[in-house]
Amino acid sequence: MKPVSQQRVHDVRRLRDMLRAAVQGGHYPDGHLPSEAELMASHQASRATVRQALTLLRAEGLIERTQGIGTHTAVKPVKTSLPEAHGVIKPSRDSLLNQRMRPRELDRSVVPAPPTAAERLGVAPGTPCLRLEYVALHDEEPIAVATNYVLFPEAGQLLGTPFVSDWYRLLDDARVELSDSEFIFDCELADALLASVLGIREGAPLILMEQLIYAPDGRPFDLAFIHTRGERFRFVSRGTKELS
Amino acid sequence: MKPVSQQRVHDVRRLRDMLRAAVQGGHYPDGHLPSEAELMASHQASRATVRQALTLLRAEGLIERTQGIGTHTAVKPVKTSLPEAHGVIKPSRDSLLNQRMRPRELDRSVVPAPPTAAERLGVAPGTPCLRLEYVALHDEEPIAVATNYVLFPEAGQLLGTPFVSDWYRLLDDARVELSDSEFIFDCELADALLASVLGIREGAPLILMEQLIYAPDGRPFDLAFIHTRGERFRFVSRGTKELS
Repeated sequence: MKPVSQQRVHDVRRLRDMLRAAVQGGHYPDGHLPSEAELMASHQASRATVRQALTLLRAEGLIERTQGIGTHTAVKPVKTSLPEAHGVIKPSRDSLLNQRMRPRELDRSVVPAPPTAAERLGVAPGTPCLRLEYVALHDEEPIAVATNYVLFPEAGQLLGTPFVSDWYRLLDDARVELSDSEFIFDCELADALLASVLGIREGAPLILMEQLIYAPDGRPFDLAFIHTRGERFRFVSRGTKELS
Repeated sequence: MKPVSQQRVHDVRRLRDMLRAAVQGGHYPDGHLPSEAELMASHQASRATVRQALTLLRAEGLIERTQGIGTHTAVKPVKTSLPEAHGVIKPSRDSLLNQRMRPRELDRSVVPAPPTAAERLGVAPGTPCLRLEYVALHDEEPIAVATNYVLFPEAGQLLGTPFVSDWYRLLDDARVELSDSEFIFDCELADALLASVLGIREGAPLILMEQLIYAPDGRPFDLAFIHTRGERFRFVSRGTKELS
């Protein structure tokens, strides 16, 4: 038999998972969460469990609680399918990648490729590349920070092209073609700089994606580190089994 | 012109991204990072920038520094392709999903479906489902915690089946077929319980995946919340553009 306190922490975590999924999934269209009493009834949970789960979600910035008014969601998550995020399909009408973002450029300069970037891109360390760094804004709110390291000749095509919406629009405007795009998913804590640029608190969790973009000739030409607010950018991946 | 201090925080973040990618990518096969002097030279960075970037990586548990000996990696990341993670292809020989994990079950009981689980699974709240919760171990180290809510009749097939390796092996052993599998990627901070079960510190960043698994008849029968250590489980996604 588990001691009661151990059971309680499991209950809190499970309720937190459920409420987080409901908030992030947009289950509360008007943004108002059920009352503590309603949550206790619908989840068969104690008041202490409900309160602790809500406290955890508030600490992550997903909900706000107002004394006497209640609890409401503090996020506007938008789903993005992975093929859209990879830039390999035409984005759907509602997608963030359908001209719905605006960049704030932090840096656009030619630098020697650092060793790891050089290794990933298959060139010698120090090879000149374009470093293009920006904050992605949606509805004027910062949702991601990305640093791209782009090899020449593609870098030359990007250098003089205005950056008006998202990265794939920029590549398109610069007539740079891509064939493949690879992500590695990671997570990290926001440091002071990311926190200040993204308008979140230091130590908040972020999704970190390392991306490699390949040219039609199979050569990787673009390495990016993308720091993303998970509560704003919901990446959806779907796998289908081949019938055997 | 940016003030020097602002430039420095950008430099620290970029170096942190690079070193993190090198550590997570297994660039240091013997686990030893270059010395501070070598990093300063290869990244054209100041000693203060190098030290600060290393401090951030150490705080996340990715590296360890030993006075007089140097810096070495503290992680053993293993790459897993998303189709493997979805359970829709046969895992490659080296994959974690090729019988390389072992579960430690925390809970296997029939419970009424909580409202959000019911909504996701398309049933009425309170519909009986099997809750199966476990820690996934690799080399006896905990790398993920998952809670599954499984509808009947599949739940009935799982109830008496021994859980010996990973979730897809369990489904297979129980003769439960899946057709589609969907992930939504999120990130979160480890609470006290996840920290203790995963052997990490409270407040460490985790990848959180919400998964829905569908039966061949198109009905979702399994909802899971999977809390994953990003520095142990490296999910790789690849998109390829159709030739136009």
